[in-house]
Amino acid sequence: MKKPLILVTNDDGITAPGIRALVEVAQMIGTPIVVAPDSPQSGMGHAISIHDPLRLHPSTVFDGVEAYACSGTPVDCVKLAKNVVLKDRQQPDLCISGINHGSNVAINILYSGTMSAAMEGSLEGIPSIGFSLLDFDWDADFEAGKPYIKQIIEYALQEGFGKSSLLNVNIPKLPFAAIRGIKVCRQANARWKEEFVEGTDPFGKKYYWMSGEFVNDDGGEDSDVWALDNGYVSVVPCGHDLTQYQSISELKKLEVSS
Amino acid sequence: MKKPLILVTNDDGITAPGIRALVEVAQMIGTPIVVAPDSPQSGMGHAISIHDPLRLHPSTVFDGVEAYACSGTPVDCVKLAKNVVLKDRQQPDLCISGINHGSNVAINILYSGTMSAAMEGSLEGIPSIGFSLLDFDWDADFEAGKPYIKQIIEYALQEGFGKSSLLNVNIPKLPFAAIRGIKVCRQANARWKEEFVEGTDPFGKKYYWMSGEFVNDDGGEDSDVWALDNGYVSVVPCGHDLTQYQSISELKKLEVSS
Repeated sequence: MKKPLILVTNDDGITAPGIRALVEVAQMIGTPIVVAPDSPQSGMGHAISIHDPLRLHPSTVFDGVEAYACSGTPVDCVKLAKNVVLKDRQQPDLCISGINHGSNVAINILYSGTMSAAMEGSLEGIPSIGFSLLDFDWDADFEAGKPYIKQIIEYALQEGFGKSSLLNVNIPKLPFAAIRGIKVCRQANARWKEEFVEGTDPFGKKYYWMSGEFVNDDGGEDSDVWALDNGYVSVVPCGHDLTQYQSISELKKLEVSS
Repeated sequence: MKKPLILVTNDDGITAPGIRALVEVAQMIGTPIVVAPDSPQSGMGHAISIHDPLRLHPSTVFDGVEAYACSGTPVDCVKLAKNVVLKDRQQPDLCISGINHGSNVAINILYSGTMSAAMEGSLEGIPSIGFSLLDFDWDADFEAGKPYIKQIIEYALQEGFGKSSLLNVNIPKLPFAAIRGIKVCRQANARWKEEFVEGTDPFGKKYYWMSGEFVNDDGGEDSDVWALDNGYVSVVPCGHDLTQYQSISELKKLEVSS
């Protein structure tokens, strides 16, 4: 049987330890091909490069793996992989993004370059998964999550995702023996409460630097935040329709001109 | 009665004609305060500045209106408006973003800085609306849409949005007399089909520049694309939960360790 082709990307950049761990898992299952940003792109959300040209450089950072460093955003990487690198070639069976250095639960899917790359894969018709580890350290230990990542990728390739084509997977910062398993759940209703640190630069000019804390307003036991707090790997199947359907009829009065 | 405070932002930059038109409408209804990017930020999606300090400069581009140019993304502008400019002051009654030079229908809500700024407003607890005109020209005529923008803002301030706190409004490129009214609708299932133009820079190095066409796979007569094609102003109430609920039970098998 032909080995599955697995497109691998991330937002921490092609040299990040997280993507190396993901490529290692992909090599166990199929043939990885990497198109990832040439510099860190955290927090880029679903940004795309409209007004700038993009560059693509072959990279040798992964032994025996076809890889390219791209000057653009994570979403640009997926678009270039599909439309330039793999143009007239076999299209990927799966797109995986990460492993992100840090959590992407709840609405962080909107801010996250890791998840936006996976979202772009799914919009391009490729089943896609974003993986994140709840550890911001560059030296984070990605080993404990690998068996779960392998299980989820194999499941995705064999069974598909049901009606979804995008999974948001977060892995708790725990040793393998302490992880209690996988929970399929919904996005928690949690949010960031920002604070801006004010400072003065060496030239006497004022600046603001974003900081803040993550606040969970969601008491449910079926959310990704709950699953992770309780030692599970969280898996949220995602879509890309943001319509709030129940509000359509409520707003019909707007159609009557005032 | 106290005049409503209306936060105005955009992604085309503080000097764009579209935001000037929006400020003019806001002045008819309440007190606008502007925090907008100091440079064009189209296609920035929900990007935020994590690794860089942000700057905020008072701007005099709007006569008699408190305004600030911000060095960050559209989402940064909303966060700074709430947490720095309006810290310890009255919070906005409404956040409006635009008028974007160009369409933001269907999944363009994910790529659009205009809509991401409005999304951020709604995440911060402020009812928010993004406005876009289906005309990419810098010299686009924003006058025809103004009565509809005024009507929608007044409705939002008086009636709210129902269970939603975010509206995506697109205005057809038509003279006022030809616009048939407002349609409240859902996000169309349409997508971009990209092509990359290849070129060589003055130093002999290859580049790729994104291009493409918008493809509508959605035959429904209740979508934003249908409404605009038929001469209506489209209004889509939006949420921020991307969970694909019907897939949760389908994926439960994943919870059984292999």
